[in-house]
Amino acid sequence: MRAPAVPAEHATAGSRRTGATPVSVIALDGSTARRRRDRLATEEPLEVRVAGPGEEPVAVAVTMRTPGNDLELAAGLLAAEGLLGDGIAAARACPDAENVVQVRLRSPLRRDRLRRRIEISSSCGLCGHTTIDELAVRCPGLDPAAGPALDPALLFALPERLREHQRLFATTGGLHAAAGFAADGTLLALREDVGRHNALDKLLGRRVLDPATPPPAIVLLSGRASLELVQKAAIAGVPVLCAVSAPSSLAVDAARALGVTLVGFLRGERANVYAHPERLGLDAEAAR
Amino acid sequence: MRAPAVPAEHATAGSRRTGATPVSVIALDGSTARRRRDRLATEEPLEVRVAGPGEEPVAVAVTMRTPGNDLELAAGLLAAEGLLGDGIAAARACPDAENVVQVRLRSPLRRDRLRRRIEISSSCGLCGHTTIDELAVRCPGLDPAAGPALDPALLFALPERLREHQRLFATTGGLHAAAGFAADGTLLALREDVGRHNALDKLLGRRVLDPATPPPAIVLLSGRASLELVQKAAIAGVPVLCAVSAPSSLAVDAARALGVTLVGFLRGERANVYAHPERLGLDAEAAR
Repeated sequence: MRAPAVPAEHATAGSRRTGATPVSVIALDGSTARRRRDRLATEEPLEVRVAGPGEEPVAVAVTMRTPGNDLELAAGLLAAEGLLGDGIAAARACPDAENVVQVRLRSPLRRDRLRRRIEISSSCGLCGHTTIDELAVRCPGLDPAAGPALDPALLFALPERLREHQRLFATTGGLHAAAGFAADGTLLALREDVGRHNALDKLLGRRVLDPATPPPAIVLLSGRASLELVQKAAIAGVPVLCAVSAPSSLAVDAARALGVTLVGFLRGERANVYAHPERLGLDAEAAR
Repeated sequence: MRAPAVPAEHATAGSRRTGATPVSVIALDGSTARRRRDRLATEEPLEVRVAGPGEEPVAVAVTMRTPGNDLELAAGLLAAEGLLGDGIAAARACPDAENVVQVRLRSPLRRDRLRRRIEISSSCGLCGHTTIDELAVRCPGLDPAAGPALDPALLFALPERLREHQRLFATTGGLHAAAGFAADGTLLALREDVGRHNALDKLLGRRVLDPATPPPAIVLLSGRASLELVQKAAIAGVPVLCAVSAPSSLAVDAARALGVTLVGFLRGERANVYAHPERLGLDAEAAR
């Protein structure tokens, strides 16, 4: 790997944001529910713009990431994509836009190596709000008042049902799962994949192919919940999205904006409700 | 969400491959090493080609996925991207190419909604071999005989070192980590991100920005190892890649092809060696 030198003042620059975002949640523990503060992994988009000498910058990648070490992220991404050429002349956070890194190469950009071209909106910066606003145009969102009304205790039984069925199909220890449940907790379908996005796409795609399939009232993810997974659930009309692990900050923002009830850390008799607790008979104001 | 009907014979078609791939591994347990068979989550690319009435098919997505329920995956992906229009007229596995799904829409494809254009090689099909062959052109691979020579017992200490440093920085429960170690097990750097790819890009990008940074002999991932993560390690010249969880089938293929020592399920005094055990003083033939 070429390891070109970079001016020292650039090597440590990056986003000034922190990697953790405070959030108010409703913590469920058996039959009790109390409001408390929590911290979520921050998730925001980063656009990497690259130009060789005398070239116009090209956006070569947009990735959802946790802010911090953004220049390293951009440099590592360019190296992995084979786009470094003779190396980096300068790299800096864009002074005019949030969540954009500008990289100037010593040699012309190898445009033939751009595997994925990404069409970027003309807006200068990227932030969670832009992303969620754009999403809202495409997806009208769900009405939390439209239900279903669920007993929180019903949720506690779902992870075991998911695991039972994963045990039947997965012997590899390396699969994500997405399971769809009816409002009474009946398992409708479970799909597995090495990619968490794919597992959810498979589960929700089933209904696209066969409209006779009942829609899931609840979807449970075996891992974490990111922005894209909340988007997919909202677009498919899934009112309640649960995850065994943590949501990202942008997943919570999206769920609140799109009317999706978002539950994380669903384990044993415990769970955190991050968005739209109304469907669980809990005070909506308590999770703002 | 529109839920168009699809001919029944299409609704259940998909890849005939299985989701689990058998593999021979060297299982380490304390000071013993024995060869055994294991099963890995299969990872292969899927290309989704879409056409409206009278249109030429366009590849709208390539995703690494576990084969099975491919039509559901394609349908779910199109729904999430807002590309369904008036719905799916027909969907089928491409008869001439592996790992390609063809979708015919009832209405013209909304090309303005293609967020990511993907440039596809002109080859008709996609399979793990194509992907790895293409990669080999870009990355010469590492020589397993060039070392470093490591004591397997040294690996057992690494996850705790990673966790200690994650504990300091992450209070969210939702972050992936990638840690770089010297050949003597010294922690060089640790990077965290909501995305596992980003955590590794940050760790490896550090050296691109500052060539004075010593290269990691070992990288440890807090989660699973997929093809892309092995690619990134090989391109950056990392000889030993370890993961706390499982590798995918294609990660193992790539590691074997690119000369990377790949260790998975590194927990306590146990680990599985999937590729190039020579660096650990183990018989190379035992992990084929």
